Amino acid sequence: MKISSKDNPLIKYLSKLYSSKKERDESNQFIIEGYNQVREAKRAGVLESVYSIKEESDYPEAIIITESLLKKITDTVTPEGIIGVVHKVETALNSDYILYLDHLQDPGNLGTLLRSALAFNFLTIILDNTVDLYNPKTIRASEGAIFHLNFSHDTLEELKKEGYYLVGTSLNGMPLETTLISHKKVVLILGNEGRGVSPIILEKTDINLTIKMNEIESLNVGVAGAIIMHEINKQ
Amino acid sequence: MKISSKDNPLIKYLSKLYSSKKERDESNQFIIEGYNQVREAKRAGVLESVYSIKEESDYPEAIIITESLLKKITDTVTPEGIIGVVHKVETALNSDYILYLDHLQDPGNLGTLLRSALAFNFLTIILDNTVDLYNPKTIRASEGAIFHLNFSHDTLEELKKEGYYLVGTSLNGMPLETTLISHKKVVLILGNEGRGVSPIILEKTDINLTIKMNEIESLNVGVAGAIIMHEINKQ
Repeated sequence: MKISSKDNPLIKYLSKLYSSKKERDESNQFIIEGYNQVREAKRAGVLESVYSIKEESDYPEAIIITESLLKKITDTVTPEGIIGVVHKVETALNSDYILYLDHLQDPGNLGTLLRSALAFNFLTIILDNTVDLYNPKTIRASEGAIFHLNFSHDTLEELKKEGYYLVGTSLNGMPLETTLISHKKVVLILGNEGRGVSPIILEKTDINLTIKMNEIESLNVGVAGAIIMHEINKQ
Repeated sequence: MKISSKDNPLIKYLSKLYSSKKERDESNQFIIEGYNQVREAKRAGVLESVYSIKEESDYPEAIIITESLLKKITDTVTPEGIIGVVHKVETALNSDYILYLDHLQDPGNLGTLLRSALAFNFLTIILDNTVDLYNPKTIRASEGAIFHLNFSHDTLEELKKEGYYLVGTSLNGMPLETTLISHKKVVLILGNEGRGVSPIILEKTDINLTIKMNEIESLNVGVAGAIIMHEINKQ
């Protein structure tokens, strides 16, 4: 199948899916870009359809679209000429380490954190009023990690009842470097880029951690989160 | 002084300085954006001139330009209406911890690494064929750290003679988690986003480190660098 008209309803649907959170919420689908992501999505069994500017031997089902139509759909600077539509999956099984994100606003930071979370075994993610998980910038920065993580909606109160140890982050908490977190089940909570973790959440935690550092006020939240996840995972 | 014509030679100069590495190299100047950066640059004594869309009581020397001219100069999505011209400073004193970047290509990664380097006392930076330090995206991501770091051109051979311990990073090195780096003088070497540290450099190092992780092949270089700098700084 080939599409070359910008008025084709499929092209209109893909454009909307790419740019609109509402469309993604209603359809339970989102768009991924490039060969790596398409391959990861297929492996994870969530790939619904593929669109490419040329025939793809690995994806005989691919629908061929013109390069100018592809550029209309996405805003990638150097596209690889292939995109996919993926359906969202949410599972109910929580992992022992959970990453809880409170009002995170930058899609790049979210994607980077997902990549680090997978690396350090924080396999369940909870998003509390963050930027949309299915924003194309988030998907891109996550480098495929999104297909190997699960997303839960549990509250901190529920997690506490399930035996999780709640670890917050703040500017005047316990030093990460000398604090042993040896609990089997841990929730790490990271906050907004500008304001940090909300005070109302910090009141519910079992401990709050601070990274020892020089001069500047704070690290990038993606960097801070990775340092703490690495530390907890190695203990 | 007020400028409202796009043909004013100063506006043309600022546009060039913003977009062209050649212009920055020849003039030894670069552009910074927003109140935080202008304040940091002034404090560091490197601020040469200020341009704003309105009168600034903190910067009576500011030259007033129209908002549309400012937008012509920069590509910031949400500009604060103030930019500055700064002169480059390079000093010869090396700190005990040095960050050596080999063929790093993403300006955002470079800026994030500078911010983390300052936090963890890697106060001297060596750039070996990386993206331009004075790229506006690098400056932005560094969050002012650039004004508190110094930039050296020493080679790894010279640093070895000066007693530095050379620490590389690779996918099959010694585990960071169980390797003590207690040397007083350390050079940490990070490589290109896709290829890692060049093989020719890895041959010169005293040790190569690997971060223990799950499943995925690699971390974002900004994240990996921060984790290792944090670990070395705390030891």
